[in-house]
Amino acid sequence: MKNYFSSDFKLGVLGGGQLGKMLLTETHKFDIYTAILDGAADAPCAQICNEFHQGNLLDFDTVYNFGKKVDLLTIEIEHVNIDALLKLEQEGLEVYPQPSVLQSIQHKGKQKDFFVKNNIPTSPHKRFSSLNELKKEGLKFPFVWKSAQFGYDGTGVKIVKNQDDLNVLADTDCIVEDLIPFKNELAVIVARNKSGEIRTYPVVEMEFHPEANQVEYVVCPARISNEVAEKATNVALKVAASFKHIGLLAVELFQTEDDKILVNEVAPRTHNSGHYSIEASYTNQFEQHVRSILNLPLGSTASKVAGIMVNLVGAEGFSGDVIYENMEKILNMDGVTPHIYGKKQTRPFRKMGHVTIVNNNLDEARKIAENVKNTIRVVSY
Amino acid sequence: MKNYFSSDFKLGVLGGGQLGKMLLTETHKFDIYTAILDGAADAPCAQICNEFHQGNLLDFDTVYNFGKKVDLLTIEIEHVNIDALLKLEQEGLEVYPQPSVLQSIQHKGKQKDFFVKNNIPTSPHKRFSSLNELKKEGLKFPFVWKSAQFGYDGTGVKIVKNQDDLNVLADTDCIVEDLIPFKNELAVIVARNKSGEIRTYPVVEMEFHPEANQVEYVVCPARISNEVAEKATNVALKVAASFKHIGLLAVELFQTEDDKILVNEVAPRTHNSGHYSIEASYTNQFEQHVRSILNLPLGSTASKVAGIMVNLVGAEGFSGDVIYENMEKILNMDGVTPHIYGKKQTRPFRKMGHVTIVNNNLDEARKIAENVKNTIRVVSY
Repeated sequence: MKNYFSSDFKLGVLGGGQLGKMLLTETHKFDIYTAILDGAADAPCAQICNEFHQGNLLDFDTVYNFGKKVDLLTIEIEHVNIDALLKLEQEGLEVYPQPSVLQSIQHKGKQKDFFVKNNIPTSPHKRFSSLNELKKEGLKFPFVWKSAQFGYDGTGVKIVKNQDDLNVLADTDCIVEDLIPFKNELAVIVARNKSGEIRTYPVVEMEFHPEANQVEYVVCPARISNEVAEKATNVALKVAASFKHIGLLAVELFQTEDDKILVNEVAPRTHNSGHYSIEASYTNQFEQHVRSILNLPLGSTASKVAGIMVNLVGAEGFSGDVIYENMEKILNMDGVTPHIYGKKQTRPFRKMGHVTIVNNNLDEARKIAENVKNTIRVVSY
Repeated sequence: MKNYFSSDFKLGVLGGGQLGKMLLTETHKFDIYTAILDGAADAPCAQICNEFHQGNLLDFDTVYNFGKKVDLLTIEIEHVNIDALLKLEQEGLEVYPQPSVLQSIQHKGKQKDFFVKNNIPTSPHKRFSSLNELKKEGLKFPFVWKSAQFGYDGTGVKIVKNQDDLNVLADTDCIVEDLIPFKNELAVIVARNKSGEIRTYPVVEMEFHPEANQVEYVVCPARISNEVAEKATNVALKVAASFKHIGLLAVELFQTEDDKILVNEVAPRTHNSGHYSIEASYTNQFEQHVRSILNLPLGSTASKVAGIMVNLVGAEGFSGDVIYENMEKILNMDGVTPHIYGKKQTRPFRKMGHVTIVNNNLDEARKIAENVKNTIRVVSY
C-alpha cells in the first residue's frame, strides 16, 4: 500500500461542488492532501481544500496541466475534458473512474448503446444528432427526450407529449426513449476498487410527490420485496461488471409495473441517492469512494439505522443571499442533520443542501422527513 | 435565531489542534464561517478552516485582537489567556464556555475548590504553591500530584510513592490528592446551551491495560449497572448545574470499590472520551458543541450502535515523518474508522489520531478494537 496518510501524496479532484465538499470531510479525516480544480472561485470546496485551482473543467490544457501536478486524479462531476484524462492516463497517471468509463457514460447515447451491447435491461431508445433529424422521424407520442450531454439534476430531460412539446426542445445531439410506466424509481450504488473488490449499498427508493412528479425523498432501505431488491442489486452488479469501473457507480433503475428492473442511467461517482449514507451507513459513500480509488479495502455498506434524505432546493420566488428559514425547528426534531453546501445565493430550484433523517424505525423517519420538508424553506430577504 | 448558515457570521476558535479539526467537519457541514487562532503554522486546522491566524493563545493582545475580529468565540483547548476573554466578554462579545467557567477549571486547585464549595463528591485534596511547600507538609505516601496548570494528556499528573518520587516533581503550583482505588474510570459529557437546555451523553468507560495502567479503550456504553450509570449521570448533571457552562463539559469520574462516584476532573470542551460519538451517536460531540454555543436546539445524544475508541499514539523508538503501518489491515475490519489528525511528525506517545470501532454488539466491537490495537502502529522510516 502507498502511504496516503499525512504524506506527500496529492489527490487531485476535478470539480469543487457539494460532492467534492463532502469528499473533503473524508480526506480530512484521513489527512489525505487534496488539490481541487473548479471553474468558480467561490466553489463550495475552494476555502477548505488543501490547494484550490480555478479553471475550466472542459478545457484540455487546464485539465491536463492540473493532472500533471497530482499523484492520482478523480472527479466529482463527469462533465470534464476526457481527452486530457486519456492523455494523462497514457502518460502513467492513475485516473479513476477510468477515462474510458467516463467516455461511455458522459454521452447518454453512448451510455444507452453500451447497455444494449452488454445485454443490460433498459428501455428502447433511438439516437439523433439534431432536432430536425428527430422531427423527421415522426415518433409516436409520448416519449422521453434527453439531451445527450451536460444534463444535470433533471435539466436536459423532457417528457414530450405532443407536437407543441417538440418545438421547445433544444436543437442538440439527443436520445429518445420509450416512456416506461414504473412502480418505483430505485438506485443502487456499487463500489469497486482496483483489486476488483465489489460492494453494493442497499437498494434505495426515490419517493415522488404524487402531484408534482418530483423526487421528494430518498428512502433507505427501499420499501420493496426482497425479491425485487435482489433483482435490482443483480442488475446493478451486471452494470458494474460490464464497466469494470474503479470508484463508485450509481445505477438508477425503474421497477416496472410487472416488476421488471430496467436501468435508467448511471453516474460514475458519488450520488445524491447516497447522501443518506453519511449518517446511516457504516461506511458512507464518500469514504467508500476514497477507499476504492486508492485501492484500499472497501468498507461495510450496511446501515446502522434507516435513513431518509430530503433535498434542500431554493424556493420559488426567491433569488439572492440565502436564508434557511426555520432551521432551528428542524434541528429540534429527532435524528435530523442538515448539510448546507455553502452556496451563498439561492435561486428557484437551486440545490442548496440536503437534510438526512435517521431513525431505528423507517416509518418514524418518514414521518419526521415529511415534517422537515414542510418546515424548512430556502429563501432570501 | 441568528443566521449562522452561509452568512457573514464569523465563529472564532482558540486552538487549531485535532479537536478544532473535528469541529471544522461540523462547521463545514453547516457552512458556518470559521476563523482559528493557533500558535503553530502547521496546526491540523491551518489549511482547512476559512481563516487561519497564527499567534500565541496565552498572549493577551493576540487573543484580544483575534476576538475583536469574530462574532462569537469558543475554544478547543483551555490553556488560553483568560484576561483577554474577560475583557472581550465585558465589551459584549459572546464567549463560550464563559471565561468565568474557564477560570474555575483551568487551574486545578481552583477546580477542586469549586467542587468542594458546591458539594460535588471528589477525593480530598490540598493545594501548594511550590514543591518546597509540599515537601514541608510531610505527606503520607502514596498520593497523587497534579500540576495546577497546563497538564495535558496525562502530563502533569504523577503518583508519588516515596521520597525519591518527590524529587522528580516540577517545582510549581500544584495540588495533591488522596490516591483513590477505583473499579472504573468513567466519563459523562454534558451539553448545555444558553437557553439552559441540557443533554447528557451515555456514560463511557475507560478500560485500562492491566499492566501498563494506561487507558487502552474508551467504551460506550460503559459496562456498568444501570444504577451506577444513573449515579454517574446525576453527579455529572450536578457539576453542570454548578458551573452553568455553555458548551460541552466532559466530567471524568471514578467509580470507587464501594460504588461511590467521585469527580476526578472536568474539561470545558469536546473531549477524547467523546470521539466515539462521531460514528456511534445521533449527534456527535462536535456538532453538539456547535449547537450549544450557538444556542441551537441540542441533538439526541443516544447511540445508533455501540462504539469503542482506541487512541493512535506514536510508538516508542520512532521519531520523524509518520507512517501508519498496517492501515490497510484495519480498514479491512468491520466498522473501523481511522481519524488521522494530520501531524506530520511522530514522536513516542504523541497523540496522532484515533480509531473508532462501531458494531451492533459491544462485545464484538471490543474484540475488533483489540485486533485494531494489536495491528496498527504509528512509526516512521
